[in-house]
Amino acid sequence: MGDCIAAVAAAFGGDEEKAAILCEQFASAGSLHDTAIGLNTLYLTSCGALVFVMHAGFAMLCAGAIRSKNTMNILLQTVMDAAVSAIAFYILGYGFAYGSGDKPNGFIGDALFGLARWKPKTIYPDPEGGAVYPDYGVGWQNWFFQWAFAATATTIPAGAVAERLNFNAYLIYSFFISAFVYPVVVHWVWSAEGWLGYARSTAYSHLFRAGMIDFAGSGVVHMTGGLAGLAGCIMVGPRMGRFDSNGNPVEMPGHSATLVVLGTVLLWFGWYGFNPGSQLLINSVANSAVVGRAAVTTTLGGAAGCLSCLVTALIRNKAWDLVAGCNGALVGFVTITAGAHVVEPWAALIAGLTGGWVFDAVCALFLKLRIDDPLSAAPMHAFCGAWGVFFVGLLAKREYICDAYGRDCSEGNWIADGLFYVGDGRLLASQVIGIICIFAWVFGLMTILFAALKAVKVLRISAEEEQAGLDVSKHGGSAYNFEHGLGKPEKAQAIGL
Amino acid sequence: MGDCIAAVAAAFGGDEEKAAILCEQFASAGSLHDTAIGLNTLYLTSCGALVFVMHAGFAMLCAGAIRSKNTMNILLQTVMDAAVSAIAFYILGYGFAYGSGDKPNGFIGDALFGLARWKPKTIYPDPEGGAVYPDYGVGWQNWFFQWAFAATATTIPAGAVAERLNFNAYLIYSFFISAFVYPVVVHWVWSAEGWLGYARSTAYSHLFRAGMIDFAGSGVVHMTGGLAGLAGCIMVGPRMGRFDSNGNPVEMPGHSATLVVLGTVLLWFGWYGFNPGSQLLINSVANSAVVGRAAVTTTLGGAAGCLSCLVTALIRNKAWDLVAGCNGALVGFVTITAGAHVVEPWAALIAGLTGGWVFDAVCALFLKLRIDDPLSAAPMHAFCGAWGVFFVGLLAKREYICDAYGRDCSEGNWIADGLFYVGDGRLLASQVIGIICIFAWVFGLMTILFAALKAVKVLRISAEEEQAGLDVSKHGGSAYNFEHGLGKPEKAQAIGL
Amino acid sequence: MGDCIAAVAAAFGGDEEKAAILCEQFASAGSLHDTAIGLNTLYLTSCGALVFVMHAGFAMLCAGAIRSKNTMNILLQTVMDAAVSAIAFYILGYGFAYGSGDKPNGFIGDALFGLARWKPKTIYPDPEGGAVYPDYGVGWQNWFFQWAFAATATTIPAGAVAERLNFNAYLIYSFFISAFVYPVVVHWVWSAEGWLGYARSTAYSHLFRAGMIDFAGSGVVHMTGGLAGLAGCIMVGPRMGRFDSNGNPVEMPGHSATLVVLGTVLLWFGWYGFNPGSQLLINSVANSAVVGRAAVTTTLGGAAGCLSCLVTALIRNKAWDLVAGCNGALVGFVTITAGAHVVEPWAALIAGLTGGWVFDAVCALFLKLRIDDPLSAAPMHAFCGAWGVFFVGLLAKREYICDAYGRDCSEGNWIADGLFYVGDGRLLASQVIGIICIFAWVFGLMTILFAALKAVKVLRISAEEEQAGLDVSKHGGSAYNFEHGLGKPEKAQAIGL
Repeated sequence: MGDCIAAVAAAFGGDEEKAAILCEQFASAGSLHDTAIGLNTLYLTSCGALVFVMHAGFAMLCAGAIRSKNTMNILLQTVMDAAVSAIAFYILGYGFAYGSGDKPNGFIGDALFGLARWKPKTIYPDPEGGAVYPDYGVGWQNWFFQWAFAATATTIPAGAVAERLNFNAYLIYSFFISAFVYPVVVHWVWSAEGWLGYARSTAYSHLFRAGMIDFAGSGVVHMTGGLAGLAGCIMVGPRMGRFDSNGNPVEMPGHSATLVVLGTVLLWFGWYGFNPGSQLLINSVANSAVVGRAAVTTTLGGAAGCLSCLVTALIRNKAWDLVAGCNGALVGFVTITAGAHVVEPWAALIAGLTGGWVFDAVCALFLKLRIDDPLSAAPMHAFCGAWGVFFVGLLAKREYICDAYGRDCSEGNWIADGLFYVGDGRLLASQVIGIICIFAWVFGLMTILFAALKAVKVLRISAEEEQAGLDVSKHGGSAYNFEHGLGKPEKAQAIGL
Repeated sequence: MGDCIAAVAAAFGGDEEKAAILCEQFASAGSLHDTAIGLNTLYLTSCGALVFVMHAGFAMLCAGAIRSKNTMNILLQTVMDAAVSAIAFYILGYGFAYGSGDKPNGFIGDALFGLARWKPKTIYPDPEGGAVYPDYGVGWQNWFFQWAFAATATTIPAGAVAERLNFNAYLIYSFFISAFVYPVVVHWVWSAEGWLGYARSTAYSHLFRAGMIDFAGSGVVHMTGGLAGLAGCIMVGPRMGRFDSNGNPVEMPGHSATLVVLGTVLLWFGWYGFNPGSQLLINSVANSAVVGRAAVTTTLGGAAGCLSCLVTALIRNKAWDLVAGCNGALVGFVTITAGAHVVEPWAALIAGLTGGWVFDAVCALFLKLRIDDPLSAAPMHAFCGAWGVFFVGLLAKREYICDAYGRDCSEGNWIADGLFYVGDGRLLASQVIGIICIFAWVFGLMTILFAALKAVKVLRISAEEEQAGLDVSKHGGSAYNFEHGLGKPEKAQAIGL
Repeated sequence: MGDCIAAVAAAFGGDEEKAAILCEQFASAGSLHDTAIGLNTLYLTSCGALVFVMHAGFAMLCAGAIRSKNTMNILLQTVMDAAVSAIAFYILGYGFAYGSGDKPNGFIGDALFGLARWKPKTIYPDPEGGAVYPDYGVGWQNWFFQWAFAATATTIPAGAVAERLNFNAYLIYSFFISAFVYPVVVHWVWSAEGWLGYARSTAYSHLFRAGMIDFAGSGVVHMTGGLAGLAGCIMVGPRMGRFDSNGNPVEMPGHSATLVVLGTVLLWFGWYGFNPGSQLLINSVANSAVVGRAAVTTTLGGAAGCLSCLVTALIRNKAWDLVAGCNGALVGFVTITAGAHVVEPWAALIAGLTGGWVFDAVCALFLKLRIDDPLSAAPMHAFCGAWGVFFVGLLAKREYICDAYGRDCSEGNWIADGLFYVGDGRLLASQVIGIICIFAWVFGLMTILFAALKAVKVLRISAEEEQAGLDVSKHGGSAYNFEHGLGKPEKAQAIGL
């Protein structure tokens, strides 16, 4: 207010009294800054809550897709993942991901551990600056939103190692990935200092003058989770009886298709926080367009994936396969997640369609290689995630990139975009480098971890325990205790009120 | 900024330097437009996500309310409805609903197919204009929000034709309704050009100088879905054994009351996006009041419906009937959906109460007529939907209409409102015309479609398949595969850690 | 606009034409007020919807944790709680809680019954005033948000009295608590006139110059619900067979761990509306910080509680106990709910950790006292709720209190804060008074109610009914009716398409 009066008075002959009247009028609009911060906060907390509900989805999907005797085990893993990742991400993970301390570098963050020395900083590198508020108040919900992603990456592998992994091994894995492995990938791709990301601060030079585009984490979240699962299910080996003596797979159907569908639809629901929320700020026309577009492309990607896998299964099995349809929808979401903000709706359909093919091919390959991934977590998250990252290099649209990254699209201004448009391949090259580096980092580290756990014999449960089921052997009982059996209902009888 | 300096300088003697100082002060508030767009975007995407979660609700409700041998079939229908409707609504449906191209007309849209030639346009006809931003960025989330409604209308009939419809027939139905039948109804009632709606642009004349009020779609969504279900369950005939040789109904209880409740409560949850979201814009005091009021009336409508059906069932069966309570809540929501924005809270209670009576009466009539609707989808959505539309003609309040439709309520200004208030019946007449036309359009077209499918013998599965259940005969197995049976739990035994 | 022109013209020599040009520039920011109201409305309605989804969580949690023969009974109680509380809170409850009529007083509200004479009023006492809009439009969503809390308090006791309470008694209880008992506690702590609360209008003197801090209701909601449950389960007595002839407890495991997890994760999800929503306004930097911080501390509280109870159970039972982990997460949420806005993240960890200990100790005590609370609702909600309220008196941070309550934290200004900081114990004393008064009010009234119901013999079902299960005896059947039994799947056979 004082600044305003001084400025106006200086311009109009020094009469502060008159200037004050003008400035009072301005002040009626003074809380716009407040309102915009409130809006961005609500945006991130509500999207973060949606990302969290994916845990309900994962829990139900995983439970339904495995045998009933291991239900409590996998449910507890999902609940634990949320709890362990929260503490790990609070103490270490967030700092490794986003901390910018005394020695900021492109590889790993070095501050904000335990949310200590929480300093005002911008939460997203936007060179134009208009929509960014460097304000401490912005920080809390950013931790929350980012943690929800960490929890997602952490819980993806549960499906891959289901029904035979030692629970203690799982705990160690869960802390390791959420405290260190995942946050480092985040730092590379999403932080202002990260060496790999498109969103890197313009104060630094970008990989191939482009950088990797990964909007909501086909690579950062899904490849990381999926590759950890891949390392796990290779190291722990297939479930007893999964392959017969000739090496042919034996079906081990899940115990509840209803839970599979419930899980899938809850994941679908949560994805509307996962993708549209990943713009991180919504208080501008460009940001709003990105948020809305992400909702559209996410929908179309999932829809196309669903139909793609359904049709493939129909051709192969001559039956409409419910689980194939559910997996297909998830595959479509995983694939479109990297580029949901920068591709056209028709491209989202292509992403889902082709993602379904990648998924089916990798699943078939796994069976050939006798890799037993009960929920197909690795084909879905690691391989379709990688395909989604690659896909952006083909079909990211110039105009939409400028919306999303606050770049200037005026004529003559070079923007790294998809090969299909004007792109000269720099973006695609960045995407490929990103895929390779995430693969090497995650698959390498996780293989070492699981190998070490194997060496000290805490990786896998005993054969007797596996036969009996983890619920009875480790968790004190069975998930289901129906009283009257569940046959035909006895004739109901109302005794009266 | 330039405009500002010019205007201010012109007023104050041409000194652009001084004007610039003033305009800089104004500019601090310059991103209000941005913030408001961000707010409206978040509003529609978050409400759209809530509408989508109703799919989880429908899936669980439908699964729980039918026999276990057909569970996978109905679950796949729900998942498919989401996927098929997304693609159908992208390619054709949204264009038929909202496209305003070279020949705008009241019957059907003619642009925006495949979201092509997406031009800046206002997303809601508001003659006062204050709160409408004609900006391309607004468009994406509008498609998303409208698609979520299309998916809802598409999936309602699944319950009515459950347990005996051919899956291929269902696929055809699903595309047809979401690409064409439903969007045309939307165009009539909700688009700026629609011949029927109260919200029609004031550039055109309105039906009876009023037009049909249907806020979130008691008519547009629920009647459409319910009437399609009615046509389907009449054409496909009752399930084997539903009526004995004397024509008396035989109970076929659903397989899980838990799933019925889960579905109901998730639908209740989603309705808080469905109704409060239907104002489409929230950045004004009037809009906010509408949004808040819709949340209140929705709650009270559902609560009254729940108790209404519970009490009726208690009187009839001398037992507290859980499924009756769940159906009652949904009946209340369906009934209040048309007028949630323009009725008083006490009127919402009456809507739910009377909606319950309509539901019970129509259900009884159906049994008399030997119409087998396993989920009572037609009594609930078609008939209570129609009752909800009619109800608005009785109890829509003048002042609230002005809030919701941006009309001017100053004294002497005529506003078409409910018969209970000053209304002269023009609004009620519009509501009746709307009910009749939606009935004729939807029931007519869907009867033709199902009749054609019957003629080519793809409407209904064979008797053997129906006996075995659709899951085994069409979907490759059973929804549930419990390992140990589910009797009394064996004594749990912890083998140790 | 007219005001602006007059003011500006008066200051600059009376030229209204020139003043109009300036004021037109101001007006471009004129709808900030509208936008801020829209934002706050969206904030409360979306958080309210999240609070409502906790009903899905409670329903699934309760169903899963009891025996299958009483499933429909407890599910119906949950659905009924939502419906009954809506009507009770509309007619009476909201008025007792927030009504400020002719005789405003600290004990009970006296207006707004049936939302009648709904007058413009501020919705939160903020002495600074900047962020409060005294506008009628704000009111609707406030009722909705507050009702969702009332419904939560109402449904908490269902778990404590499960499997043997008469349904008619439950109905009476449900109306009584939501219409009267709970609203009075709300009035004490959260209303502008309440004698007990920290947020009391500064026009009145505060208890110990401090007042009780209870952000989202560890005391107001959870103690109230938990204490009602405690009174109920003491008066109704233990389930048949829960304690053997020697008084030793006999395990009565719930029928589905999957439902327990689903319920827990949905409650977790809903808590992100429950806590972050309780700031009630979000359109300022301080409010936004509170909202974001609440999301962080809620997450960490739940995570710590989960691990706390898991480890305790592991030590005791030598097994990883899924239900213990789920209960632990909920315990953490209950404990942190009172202070989520004013404690540091590390303090939230301590809250969850110690909350787990309180829970385990009280559960053990209950078994000693032969109190049978099937869902441990009283240990969780009443006792951990009380611990959470107490905890705020220890660790509420000065700076965060100023954020949350709009106080002035400049140097020298005394603020009642936690004992661990500068606090002189006034805040802690207020918290203790609050705990005692809520205990006396709720436990006293509910004991009287249940005793009266016992006296007229409508409190408990007969032994035969309990043996048979409530579903068959009162609700007309069984919750589950599986057709083919649920043993090993028969070999699926695709009959073709």
